Parts: sequence; C-alpha cells; structure tokens
Amino acid sequence: MKKILPALLCLLLFSACEVSDTGETVVGGYPWDIPPTKPDRPLSMAMERLYDNYLTPRPEDNELFSSFKYTRLKGFDYNGGDGTISRRDASKIIFENGKYYVYYTKRHTKVPPIGAKRAHESTDEIPSTDWDLAEIWYATSEDGFTWEEQGVAVPRPPKPTVGWRAVTTTDILKWKGKYYLYYQGFLEASGKKGDHCPVAASFADSPDGPWTPANRIIIPNGEPGTWDQYSIHDPYPLVYKDKIYVYFKAAYGDRPDYLVGNGLAMADDPLGPFEKHPLNPLFNSGHETALFPFREGIAALVIRNGNESNTIQYAPDGINFNIAAVTSLMPTAAGSYIPDAFNSNGNGRGISWGLCHFTNASDDPAKRYSVLARFDCDLSLDVDDAEMKNTQLWLKPDVYFSQGLSAQQRERLQKSSDK
Amino acid sequence: MKKILPALLCLLLFSACEVSDTGETVVGGYPWDIPPTKPDRPLSMAMERLYDNYLTPRPEDNELFSSFKYTRLKGFDYNGGDGTISRRDASKIIFENGKYYVYYTKRHTKVPPIGAKRAHESTDEIPSTDWDLAEIWYATSEDGFTWEEQGVAVPRPPKPTVGWRAVTTTDILKWKGKYYLYYQGFLEASGKKGDHCPVAASFADSPDGPWTPANRIIIPNGEPGTWDQYSIHDPYPLVYKDKIYVYFKAAYGDRPDYLVGNGLAMADDPLGPFEKHPLNPLFNSGHETALFPFREGIAALVIRNGNESNTIQYAPDGINFNIAAVTSLMPTAAGSYIPDAFNSNGNGRGISWGLCHFTNASDDPAKRYSVLARFDCDLSLDVDDAEMKNTQLWLKPDVYFSQGLSAQQRERLQKSSDK
Repeated sequence: MKKILPALLCLLLFSACEVSDTGETVVGGYPWDIPPTKPDRPLSMAMERLYDNYLTPRPEDNELFSSFKYTRLKGFDYNGGDGTISRRDASKIIFENGKYYVYYTKRHTKVPPIGAKRAHESTDEIPSTDWDLAEIWYATSEDGFTWEEQGVAVPRPPKPTVGWRAVTTTDILKWKGKYYLYYQGFLEASGKKGDHCPVAASFADSPDGPWTPANRIIIPNGEPGTWDQYSIHDPYPLVYKDKIYVYFKAAYGDRPDYLVGNGLAMADDPLGPFEKHPLNPLFNSGHETALFPFREGIAALVIRNGNESNTIQYAPDGINFNIAAVTSLMPTAAGSYIPDAFNSNGNGRGISWGLCHFTNASDDPAKRYSVLARFDCDLSLDVDDAEMKNTQLWLKPDVYFSQGLSAQQRERLQKSSDK
Repeated sequence: MKKILPALLCLLLFSACEVSDTGETVVGGYPWDIPPTKPDRPLSMAMERLYDNYLTPRPEDNELFSSFKYTRLKGFDYNGGDGTISRRDASKIIFENGKYYVYYTKRHTKVPPIGAKRAHESTDEIPSTDWDLAEIWYATSEDGFTWEEQGVAVPRPPKPTVGWRAVTTTDILKWKGKYYLYYQGFLEASGKKGDHCPVAASFADSPDGPWTPANRIIIPNGEPGTWDQYSIHDPYPLVYKDKIYVYFKAAYGDRPDYLVGNGLAMADDPLGPFEKHPLNPLFNSGHETALFPFREGIAALVIRNGNESNTIQYAPDGINFNIAAVTSLMPTAAGSYIPDAFNSNGNGRGISWGLCHFTNASDDPAKRYSVLARFDCDLSLDVDDAEMKNTQLWLKPDVYFSQGLSAQQRERLQKSSDK
C-alpha cells in the first residue's frame, strides 16, 4: 500500500510523475544535471545499465574507456617489405635494467608464407602461415618508440620436442626473481589441421637470457570433446592473488562455424601443474586478448571474434568479466607496458601504451608479413589525457569507402525486387 | 542436500567437475560443439551473457549484428566542394510511386559556415554552423545509388515562426494516407547559445508535397531543469503498437561535461499532443540514433556520444533497450530504407541499406560541408549476406597511423618519468 497511494495520487495529479523504488513520488522529467550516481526514480533499462555497468555515466570520465593512437616504430628491419621477415604478437612490455623489453614472434624465412590452404606444400624452409617456422626474439628500447633487436630468445628446439616446427605468440612472467616465457609450441606446420598446439615455456635468471627450455608441455590441451582440446593460444601470464594466472585463447566448434573463447589456467609454480578454471571460457569473444591488473580486479582489451568484439571488459574477481566500455580502432594483438603486472597487490593502475601488430603490412598477398607498431591510450589511473577519451574518431570518408560492396553483393542488389 | 551430495562426490572424484543449477554433476570442460542454447552447467558471467543478451552465440549468425559497406552517391552537386552547398541528416527512406524518396538538410549559402564559436558574426546570409540557414530538401532514386534532387520540401518560414532561422534534421511519417515531416525549428543561429530548438512539422497528401507547415511547436522542450529543456533533436517517427512513436535526442548537463540521451514522445495524432515517455531517456548513448521495427520490438543503431557508442541495441517493448551487438565503422546519421516503418504490426523485418553523411567532406575547415553517402548492411531477416557479418574490418595500417599522437601528448610522454 505504501507504493500504491503515491501512485494513485500521481495518476490523479500529474501525467509525467512516477513512483520510485523507495515509494517517493518523482515529479517531472529526468534532471538536466547528470546525476553522478543512480537516481532514485524509475529508469529505463539503458539508464539502469549506465549506472550499474560503467564506472561513470560519461565515457570521457570513465577510467576504462579509451580511444587509441598509433605510431610507427623505429629500429626494425623488414628486408624492404618483401615478406621474408615478419614480427608480430608482442608480449607485454617489462622495464628492467633501465630499459623496456619486448618479446615477439619473428619469422625470417627464404620465402614469404604460401598460406594455410597450401600447408601441405610447406617444407623445412617454406612456411605455410606468417607464424610458421617462427621463433621468439626480443628487443629493448629506451623510450618505447625506437627499438633495438637483441637476438633470439627461444629458438625452435630439435624435432620432436614440443615447438620444433615453430615457437610463437609468447608472453612473459616474472616470478620470484626469475623470468618465464610462455609460448605456443607447434608440432606441425600451421594450417595442416589448423593451429593445433599446446603451451610450452622457457626460463632464465635475466630478461636477456640465456633461456632454458622446459622441453615439455606446460599447459596441456583439454580432454577430447572439450573447447580447448586442440589449441591453447596466446598464453598471457599475470600474477594475481599471489598465484600465477595464465589467460589463454581457444577456438572451438567445427569450422567454419567456430567461436573463440578465452580461459584461465592457474598455478603456484610457473612450470605447473596448471589447473584450468572450472568456469572457462571466461570471455565469449576476443582474439589475442590483452589483460592487465586494474584496481582489485583484471581488465581486458577484447577485439575481433565474437558478439563483444571492440569492448574493454572488467572483472573485479578476475573471473567474471562485464563490458566496461565500447570503443573502436583497438590495437590488434596488444602487448602493453604493465608496470604492476606481477605485483599489483589488489591495486592495479592500468596501462597507457604498448605494442600491437598489423598483419596486412603488405598490399601484396604473395609478400605477406606483419609489423609491430606502438599504441597509446589512457586506461591508467595515473594518466588523465582528455585527448584519449574520444567516443567518435574522425576517419576520412575514403576509409569508409574502402569498405565497398563486392561484385557479388552488387549483383544481389541488382537482382533484388526490394531494390 | 540435493546439491551438496553431488558436489562432495565431485570434489572427491574429479577436480574439474561442477554442479549445475539443476543439481546435475557436470564433468569436464566446456564442450567443443558450441551449445546453441544455454547449457545447464556453471557459467562465467561472460558465457551467461552470451546466451542471455545475444540472439545467437556467434555474431556471424546474429540477425542484429552487421558490418557496414559504403558507396559514393551519384547525382548530387556540391559546387566543386567549396563549402557553399551541404547535404546531411537524411531521413528514413520511403518507397512511393515506384521510387525511393529521401528528405534531408540542405544548406546553399553564399559562403561556407564560419563556425559555432563565431556565431555572433553570423548574418541572414552568413551561416554559423553547417546546418544554420538550412532548409529541408528532397530527392528521389530508382536504385538507391543515383539520386535526383527534386527541390525544397520545407523552406524556412518567415520570422518569427518556429524554424525561421533554419529547418533541419528531418524525418518522415506516413499515417492514414498522409505524410508528415518532423524537423528541428531553429529560432536563432546555431551556436549562439547552443543548438536550442523544439520540433516543428509540416504535412502533405503526397510525398512530393506541397507541404503545409503546422507553424507551431509540435514536440515542446521539457520543463526547466529537465534533461530536454533546451533541445529536442533528430525527431524520428515510427508507427508502433498503433501509435505514433517519435524518438528524439537531447544533450543534457552543462558543457563541456554533457551527456547525450535519446527519448520518446508518443501521440495518437501526428500533430500531437505528444506525451513524453516517463522512463526517458531510453538510451544512455547515441547521436542521430537510427531506429527500425525488428520482430516484436524496436532496434537501433547507436553511434557516438556515450559508453555504448558503436552498438546495435534492441528493445522487445520499444522502451527497454539492451546491447544486441557491438560493431564498428557505423554509418553516421543513418536514414535507413525501412519498408515496414509504419506497418510492421509486431513483425519488423529489419534493414539492409540507407543513406548516411560525412561532415568532413572537405579537408579545409574553412570550406566545411557535408555529403550524403549510401551504406549497406545485413540487419534484415530477409537478407542473408555472410560478407556483412565481419567482426573485424581490415583497415590499412595508415588508417591507424592517421590517429597519431598530438604534439601535446608527445611532450607529456617525454616529460614522464614513467617513459
């Protein structure tokens, strides 16, 4: 009755008044001054979401919203862009010995990749995909813009050790003064059956190596019939709640109708055993998902595959992620500089830059290769850059027109009675 | 107890098994074959959302997910792009008399706009913004690609009638055999105080006119202190549940810290009285939001301003919108061809093309003008085009590098101890 009486009065007296949850009669429209917290009045689902799902009502104030800016790197040679040298899939960036370190997939082959469809023609010298026959290399930088390649970190081990065909898509962990590189270890040319591979690892006392390979599978594929039975991709280690958290990606479902999920494996020792989280997958979307400690939880850049591509997500528990922001032109395969990746202690500070890659560095599909590039953003509690909080990028009309109708689509339109 | 026993057994026997909501013991990881409906097992929040929030687990199958393709129009003259002719803010497109009709904002002035900041220098012949001194024009087309401008539909009325300064951002309603154009009626040059204006309307017996102006405010601004007190923008009429639904946009909060919302006004007669929905705003984001009947509800393209820019949203009741898809490179100020905009009868079929605009048609800010363009998509239940279901566009690296760091940002980075 408490709510009925004001409601009746409301009906009698005003046409635009409403009764709030607490029974208070709310007269008139939504206020001009944006309520900083959820107002006590009936709200549409979208306005409920505005206060329940986002850190702030305005993306411009939202610490988990950012647009992205891009800069070409200096210091890497690509042999004139002939497709024989490729660099991709940067690790997170760490700061050691007064400089930044990044680890990445490098392919340096006699010829460019021939493509996954021709994988059966690949040889010990002819790569199928851009990451076939690749190794883990590393580079250092004083400023994050100019990089000096230091050499190979993890070479391919001899056959039949895991990774003999290719070691790729690495990321780094620092744990109790030692360094661990996790990476995909290929046991056949990518494309023959897919990108089937488990996760292998190497360790060192210094970020410069030398790296000792564990020479065994560190994070195994799932049981037959489960989502990660064939591949564990993009291992991404963080230290969270005093444990080693390795997030990873797996594609599941028979192609072409597959979906990409991201899950988590946890361990107390860098070389395992790793226990997969029972709620996996933890993401319903995302390729090369980049994560970082944020406040008490974990945040993630979610791009490509899935209904939630182009979002920034946040899980206060590192497990249950929700959409924290929607953005565009996100960095592909981002490896961020995360000062507190291994020691956030429940107070993650976020990120403001990193490296990403472009896999379409060449216009010529016969000379396919990838390049690393720098991205900047403001997803950091310690940076406040209004220029990074742009909800609509102004791209030139030509960028839109570059996405034109195909011949097949034009034919469909011409035939359609519904012109 | 029903759930405890299996849980205990589970703990004893397996490390990776879980107990579902129905008490069933679920052994092992998530299945490889994508469950088409929500599986009965414990799920992460993201996987709950995958089934609760989206029409299908895969965006490729999601009728409310689409990428967008763009085509330049033929038939419109822009005086060599000198900034004196501008066309923008296309209405929805209707098909009448064997051809498509579109209504839009056209500015044809002696000089290009001088900008909102110099609005006090505007005269009866010098426009402040791109839409100052504009009128409503219309064009027709046989195929949606080549358009023939037919002339003015709604000219500016004499001072002081509402709209005397500019009539802009129109959209069309067909109701009981008559046609109604709703539009923003400016009573001062845009930029002087903002874009303050109410909604006015004209009506006709034919889509070719002649149009009779109502010569009064049709949808008034809100009461002082409410979110839409100063502006009702982008009126967007649909017929839904046998009523006239006019969705509209208003910016609220004192600048620069404003937010953009979208609300709804409803009426039984096209000329009112209109009643605003008590749950307004119905969207927490979006500029020039484009809506269309879809199944039993209403769907919307939500772009620009707000935490949910770049989303496609859906409300089964036309009121409570949720995110149905996230996408990118969406059409700005879309006016879609909506065959059933006025007679969907609870079975909306969706859209597959329309017109949008680019406000940065000129690289020279002194010659600012806008152009209309065509977009295509697959948000239609009657179209099935896999080429439109692309979750990542391949834009050239140069597009990313066009978003470069500003001089100010480079300076900040150089000064930062956290390089």
